Amino acid sequence: MDFVFLGTGAGVPAKARNVSAIALELLEERGVVWLFDCGEATQHQILKTSVKPRRIEKIFITHLHGDHIFGLPGLLSSRSFQGGTEDLTVYGPKGIRDYIQTSLSVSGTHLKYSLSVVEIEEGIIFEDGQFTVSALALDHGILSFGYRIVEKDRPGTLLVDKLRDEGVPPGPIFKAIKNGENVTLEDGRVLYGADYLSEPNKGRILAILGDTRTCEQTILLAKNADYLVHEATFSRDEGEMAFDYFHSTTAQAANTAKLAGARQLILTHISARYMGEDIAELQNEACEIFPNTVIAEDLLQVKIPLYVEKQG
Amino acid sequence: MDFVFLGTGAGVPAKARNVSAIALELLEERGVVWLFDCGEATQHQILKTSVKPRRIEKIFITHLHGDHIFGLPGLLSSRSFQGGTEDLTVYGPKGIRDYIQTSLSVSGTHLKYSLSVVEIEEGIIFEDGQFTVSALALDHGILSFGYRIVEKDRPGTLLVDKLRDEGVPPGPIFKAIKNGENVTLEDGRVLYGADYLSEPNKGRILAILGDTRTCEQTILLAKNADYLVHEATFSRDEGEMAFDYFHSTTAQAANTAKLAGARQLILTHISARYMGEDIAELQNEACEIFPNTVIAEDLLQVKIPLYVEKQG
Ligand SMILES: [Zn+2]
Ligand SMILES: [Zn+2]
Repeated sequence: MDFVFLGTGAGVPAKARNVSAIALELLEERGVVWLFDCGEATQHQILKTSVKPRRIEKIFITHLHGDHIFGLPGLLSSRSFQGGTEDLTVYGPKGIRDYIQTSLSVSGTHLKYSLSVVEIEEGIIFEDGQFTVSALALDHGILSFGYRIVEKDRPGTLLVDKLRDEGVPPGPIFKAIKNGENVTLEDGRVLYGADYLSEPNKGRILAILGDTRTCEQTILLAKNADYLVHEATFSRDEGEMAFDYFHSTTAQAANTAKLAGARQLILTHISARYMGEDIAELQNEACEIFPNTVIAEDLLQVKIPLYVEKQG
Repeated sequence: MDFVFLGTGAGVPAKARNVSAIALELLEERGVVWLFDCGEATQHQILKTSVKPRRIEKIFITHLHGDHIFGLPGLLSSRSFQGGTEDLTVYGPKGIRDYIQTSLSVSGTHLKYSLSVVEIEEGIIFEDGQFTVSALALDHGILSFGYRIVEKDRPGTLLVDKLRDEGVPPGPIFKAIKNGENVTLEDGRVLYGADYLSEPNKGRILAILGDTRTCEQTILLAKNADYLVHEATFSRDEGEMAFDYFHSTTAQAANTAKLAGARQLILTHISARYMGEDIAELQNEACEIFPNTVIAEDLLQVKIPLYVEKQG
């Protein structure tokens, strides 16, 4: 599980930072990539990484501002052109379907895969045996969602040696125990499944938020998250500007991470006004409030480790 | 007058070549830039050049395939964001208005300049004191236009020294002669305007064509053109493939240039299958038929000199 930050700028593309897109690689987990937002030239950024468009299984759009969606028609088309045949689902606010349909139909684009577009509302928008993804509306002038991705706990692995010591042969009993069941052996002994499994692998929690003013919902979404990805369009001292333009400052994002009990904070959607040494300054501002903060840059890759019990 | 080739690839962006866009800089002529097609990330390519989005006065779309239009919403938005206030007109086939309007309205984009969208048909689509632009439909499966840009002849400059030798003082007579009029002096002498003007500057002719199979219309559009910009998606030997996919080969484009009596040929829309030494080979194929051929590459700038009388 890795983040690949494809575009970390705000509003318009600049040489240093492209407009918004984040890839969440779930290669070990399910052999796919999820994309969060798709600003113009996201497919161009992808060319510089190991991400394969045909592996993109889901695209979550936070909101419909151009710097978050104008790369979508091109990416969807190229995925088909390059031989992508697996189903793809796009989730996003109402309007995303019209945008995609118009772009594809006007351009005479016929996809060679099945595309589903889901116009979402708040709540759980996707769930399967591995993940639950839910969305809450933030505060950005237009409808902007934050996404919370919760990985389900996975049962521990079978303690094969311990079972062998009890004289249990491989076969149906192994399978029952692996499923966490209790088993009565022919000789009357009872084996409790939990005793023969390693500790369960606790699922990880990620919060990836769209553009927003600082607000309560960001804290709900980021509650105990392993990683919070939060916009920080402005520096600490530009709170008024952030409010006026429905954005956040470094300090506000850091405060959300702290209040939510998140473990790591990654700041993105950085205004082009900040460059060079400004970036270290932005990081300092956030770290004073929440030490585990990183400022994303284009093509930054962040490995998300398996859950490790929280210290203290 | 300069061409700046912003994207010279075909179909999907590749590292070496972006999708289609050509800037025609008319800085000396009218202080503006005209754009022909606007594939995704055209605004990103522009960042690498001296082209200023706010100077773009007209955008001519040849056809609605995604690799020719998916950069339009982003460019239009950024032009506004970056302070562009001058009127802008987009010309293109039917459907371009729906695409632009949907993209801008879904994304909540409010332009700070006046945008006109003209859905064109064959014929003269723009004319003023300087230029006439006309369009003809080509052969590309979907409606694809070729544009012919004809610069009007400009009168020669006033031969001031020669007038002074005749004892004519600067003033109204100078002005009349500059307008090409004949003037009777107080002493009865008649000055013929043409005698006191340098040779008129003959207007230049450019033909910039959309994707197409080789066809008659390309020759009409390129008739006596100073520059013909023609697609060459495939090499000489891939005529069948070119036909099947509604594209042209190097040799077909060169033949058009020859039959039309054009002076220079620039090939673009090169398939990503050709790279390195293949490019020299493509050029050789064309040059065997039409020697004045260049294969465009991304960010190639071509100065278009003032008209010089054709040799031979
Ligand atoms: Zn936004
Ligand atoms: Zn085409």
